[in-house]
Amino acid sequence: MQLETIKTPSLILDINRMKRNAEQMTARAKNLNVALRPHVKTHRCLEIAKLQTQGNTGGIMVSTLSEAHFFANNGFSDITYGVPIERGKFDEAIALSKTIDRFAVLSDDAETVELLNKTANRENAKLDVFVKIDVGYHRCGIEPDTAEAFEIPNKISDSSNLNFAGILTHAGHSYLADSPEKLLKVAQQERDLMRNLAEELRGKGLNVPTVSIGSTPTMSAINNLDGITEFRCGNYIFYDAFQATLGSCSFSDCALTVLAAVVHRDSERRKVVVDAGAIALSKDRGAVALDANCGYGRVYDLAGNDLNLRVESLSQEHGEIHVSDAQVFDNLKVGSRVRILANHSCLTALQHSHYHVLDDGKIVERWEINRGW
Amino acid sequence: MQLETIKTPSLILDINRMKRNAEQMTARAKNLNVALRPHVKTHRCLEIAKLQTQGNTGGIMVSTLSEAHFFANNGFSDITYGVPIERGKFDEAIALSKTIDRFAVLSDDAETVELLNKTANRENAKLDVFVKIDVGYHRCGIEPDTAEAFEIPNKISDSSNLNFAGILTHAGHSYLADSPEKLLKVAQQERDLMRNLAEELRGKGLNVPTVSIGSTPTMSAINNLDGITEFRCGNYIFYDAFQATLGSCSFSDCALTVLAAVVHRDSERRKVVVDAGAIALSKDRGAVALDANCGYGRVYDLAGNDLNLRVESLSQEHGEIHVSDAQVFDNLKVGSRVRILANHSCLTALQHSHYHVLDDGKIVERWEINRGW
Repeated sequence: MQLETIKTPSLILDINRMKRNAEQMTARAKNLNVALRPHVKTHRCLEIAKLQTQGNTGGIMVSTLSEAHFFANNGFSDITYGVPIERGKFDEAIALSKTIDRFAVLSDDAETVELLNKTANRENAKLDVFVKIDVGYHRCGIEPDTAEAFEIPNKISDSSNLNFAGILTHAGHSYLADSPEKLLKVAQQERDLMRNLAEELRGKGLNVPTVSIGSTPTMSAINNLDGITEFRCGNYIFYDAFQATLGSCSFSDCALTVLAAVVHRDSERRKVVVDAGAIALSKDRGAVALDANCGYGRVYDLAGNDLNLRVESLSQEHGEIHVSDAQVFDNLKVGSRVRILANHSCLTALQHSHYHVLDDGKIVERWEINRGW
Repeated sequence: MQLETIKTPSLILDINRMKRNAEQMTARAKNLNVALRPHVKTHRCLEIAKLQTQGNTGGIMVSTLSEAHFFANNGFSDITYGVPIERGKFDEAIALSKTIDRFAVLSDDAETVELLNKTANRENAKLDVFVKIDVGYHRCGIEPDTAEAFEIPNKISDSSNLNFAGILTHAGHSYLADSPEKLLKVAQQERDLMRNLAEELRGKGLNVPTVSIGSTPTMSAINNLDGITEFRCGNYIFYDAFQATLGSCSFSDCALTVLAAVVHRDSERRKVVVDAGAIALSKDRGAVALDANCGYGRVYDLAGNDLNLRVESLSQEHGEIHVSDAQVFDNLKVGSRVRILANHSCLTALQHSHYHVLDDGKIVERWEINRGW
């Protein structure tokens, strides 16, 4: 199968770029002396998870229990579930924990810890629980300088059916850093706050097996991770327009594009419309703060040459692209094909059911995506 | 099954509201003396398409060939494919056209019409082709006052293996109307331009069987459709926060919500995080021009009472909600459940694999969603 003939829109995965991204992050984790736990929510694909765990411990991070089941059923035996657990998911999480070597959940809520322990006790299960720490993103987690940052680890540690697995954070505010200096500062803050908290907890007699941090931008910025045991990141496997704009990678590292066909052209407005809309690309607006004109994705030709165009607006199945260059416009007749590098590859990938794997200009495999919750 | 216990996030469809929306639009089309062709891209669900075509001609509109196959395989025999056709989809469209009574495609491109005719000739097929007209949205279509608006219908009509099905438009700029007066003006313009063009084409000897217009907002605004034969709209079956803000419906007409659980609460920032992120809600920003604070959805309790909260930010599986009211915040403990009315129900629905059908507070059925291309 070839890019010229497969159905549009389709998700195209450049396998060589992806392998290079995986190898480079694995090497980076080794150099920094941390275990790499890839966040598979970016792709939710068995073949990719196998590839990116090669040379690492085999542990993965997931964002849904559906992913946890899927990867557990396919040989992954060390899984952390990355959204704070709540009571509606206790039974499923406990059942899952009995099927693999290690299933860890997160909490930052005292009442939830108590209820989880009661349920685990009733089910005769023992569950690993991380305490989620907020190092400045302010999405979830406990701030490290509060009383709770000691109380909740203690509560877990004292619970009959829970193991305190350690502390874990995600410096999501790294995506807001608009300079390399600011990004490095976020990465250092993430490391320092977590290292210090772990030391304080140990000083109070608690065992803190894992100190886990991570985001693709901070992993690209930091050069010393002393005191950290585990690094989690996900987007790096594909990267995307947002990461390249942010400086985590170059545009030539981005491995995932959406193949689309021109379905309309408007000579008066110098505009074409492609058959990749919000359902094919996702409506993530990307790095608007860094690039006000980023639109919903960058447009390449089939060989991967940058056409210097953006998808400016999206409806369900239509994407609009203005084309000022006369020669480029002339080439973009109805039926022509382009490849769109989306702003946010994680959300784009999960709009689709499968990847078309591209190797040396040809589609060589089809890899399925696990979707849903 | 009940809202208190089913897995989150889940798509919840209020069947009574949906039935009322379907009945009201059917009655409206009858009063206006036009055939109603529902756009099933909003839901991509067999049960819903059956329900909304009751009392109408049975014809539907789709946005992908995957939908066309799905509905053709399930008894729908009159289908229009609503994205302009391009050569990569000719073979599939022609094969499809042979399986049902009537499969119509759109074009606004002379070269595409020629190529389609050649392919249809080679395949010994005859295909219905609409000409897409631009009445002011400027996404796709030919403007009615240009030479092409006559040339392309003629070209189709003269083609050995194509039938000229008529003219068709979508006044998508109705979504930008920020007052009832402006909305009515868009609706009248849509009607008048299409009626006049049809008359001109007929005056030149062309048969124009169908004059097809439509969008949910214009259908809610217009009271006279003389000269129009068919009306297409899709969103009305569910409505959403965008449509209610625009005035196409009231908030109590909105039939689709996402059930979510609180996974984190932050007393200092008076914030909760729910387990419905971009993958559950879609990142459509909705009626920002009309309501700068619309966020990514409105928050209701399980009984459907408005909590006067918005989902302010979304990551893949997390949605953040600020809660200023002390009593509401106190009720939203980790594990509590809410229902989120998304900005754009079409995009939200297609993030999920199925609907949970809610009748009188209980989940009574599960209906599957056809996804992909």
